[in-house]
Amino acid sequence: MSEKRADRLSQLRNIPVFMKLPDSALGMLHGILAARSFHKGENIFTEGSESTGFYIVTKGRVKVFKLSAEGKEQILHIVGAKELLGAVSAFAGAPYPAHADAMEKTTAFFLPRKDFLALIQKEPSVVMNMMANLAMRLQHFTRLIEDLSLKEVPGRLAAYLLYLCERTGCSDVLEIDISKGQLASLLGTIPETLSRILRKMSDKGILEVRGRRVRLLNRKALHDIVNGEKMGL
Amino acid sequence: MSEKRADRLSQLRNIPVFMKLPDSALGMLHGILAARSFHKGENIFTEGSESTGFYIVTKGRVKVFKLSAEGKEQILHIVGAKELLGAVSAFAGAPYPAHADAMEKTTAFFLPRKDFLALIQKEPSVVMNMMANLAMRLQHFTRLIEDLSLKEVPGRLAAYLLYLCERTGCSDVLEIDISKGQLASLLGTIPETLSRILRKMSDKGILEVRGRRVRLLNRKALHDIVNGEKMGL
Repeated sequence: MSEKRADRLSQLRNIPVFMKLPDSALGMLHGILAARSFHKGENIFTEGSESTGFYIVTKGRVKVFKLSAEGKEQILHIVGAKELLGAVSAFAGAPYPAHADAMEKTTAFFLPRKDFLALIQKEPSVVMNMMANLAMRLQHFTRLIEDLSLKEVPGRLAAYLLYLCERTGCSDVLEIDISKGQLASLLGTIPETLSRILRKMSDKGILEVRGRRVRLLNRKALHDIVNGEKMGL
Repeated sequence: MSEKRADRLSQLRNIPVFMKLPDSALGMLHGILAARSFHKGENIFTEGSESTGFYIVTKGRVKVFKLSAEGKEQILHIVGAKELLGAVSAFAGAPYPAHADAMEKTTAFFLPRKDFLALIQKEPSVVMNMMANLAMRLQHFTRLIEDLSLKEVPGRLAAYLLYLCERTGCSDVLEIDISKGQLASLLGTIPETLSRILRKMSDKGILEVRGRRVRLLNRKALHDIVNGEKMGL
């Protein structure tokens, strides 16, 4: 097996939506994908154009946005590594509903819709697995929204960190992509309290913070905190 | 067409995950489903048992839970009308990871995994449409989590109401399934502020509140509030 192929297969294996796919199915996906790369500011697709397939971002960040009549940009969401881009239109066979531009140097796998359709007809297990992953993530996100209504801030923070890790398919290091002020606001607290809790979690060996990078050292403890364990926080 | 069939087809058409499916595909789904009903407290499936298919709740509520070694119940989530139940295991071909009991008189459509697999092989558009819906909801939920970090409470509340409506496939009336205290906590405010904002929204004809029922009268206004419009709130 060539090094490039092995490298791509291992990238595919780490994409949340392809989790638990057998190697044979990953091989079939590898057979239909094209690796693409975009420079900072480059357009990936435009609103209203026909969707010919979907992307999986492997590196970088992409903004998905609409333009108002006055040309003002309204960002709908930012897609990062290991996330799907343009999937809704590709699955539905509808035009792209917005523009997408690379915010920095970005690489992605492109999966043509036509080839993907042929693949799932030959191998429906691929799509059943994808649906299981999508449905599971949906369930976890719904649960996060419930967890964010927990009374205690440590439980909210733990739920958010576990969510971020799941969204980005993190092994243990995750990057917080909003400011500390926004995060505190999301958790219904002030930045000072947030910092204090992070420091305590760090003292207890639950995680390690370096700027915006957080390394999760003890996920079980985080789950316990979500479930109401005090852990002296 | 019999009345019962027409009624079931119209129920299927209103399930978020089947949105936009053509009538022919809805007819195929109708052909494989079995209508089931459960009395209050009745077990629907048990942890570890083989998944033979998935359910779509049409009325009532189901709790999905685990039992600790001491027999204590830990509720993972509550599944309401128009939501999928047991789908992750059925799609993945894995055993049910938890127990499910009806919390009140509940009716559901059961879709056998075997028949569903045969259906999507014959008609892949069904599964592409389902994936589009799952991916879209995932995107919207991710966005909600970002919206909940907005500074202003009215924007958070508007985002949450639009999310609840989407989650339950509401046409305009939705039921808030958490207490006012929990909702205030989720939005990072106190119940008094929440009540005041709801009253103002109601005065402006944006919504109508009756106990836990909220009727959305002006969704565009809610979207505008999420996007930062003050609307005098």
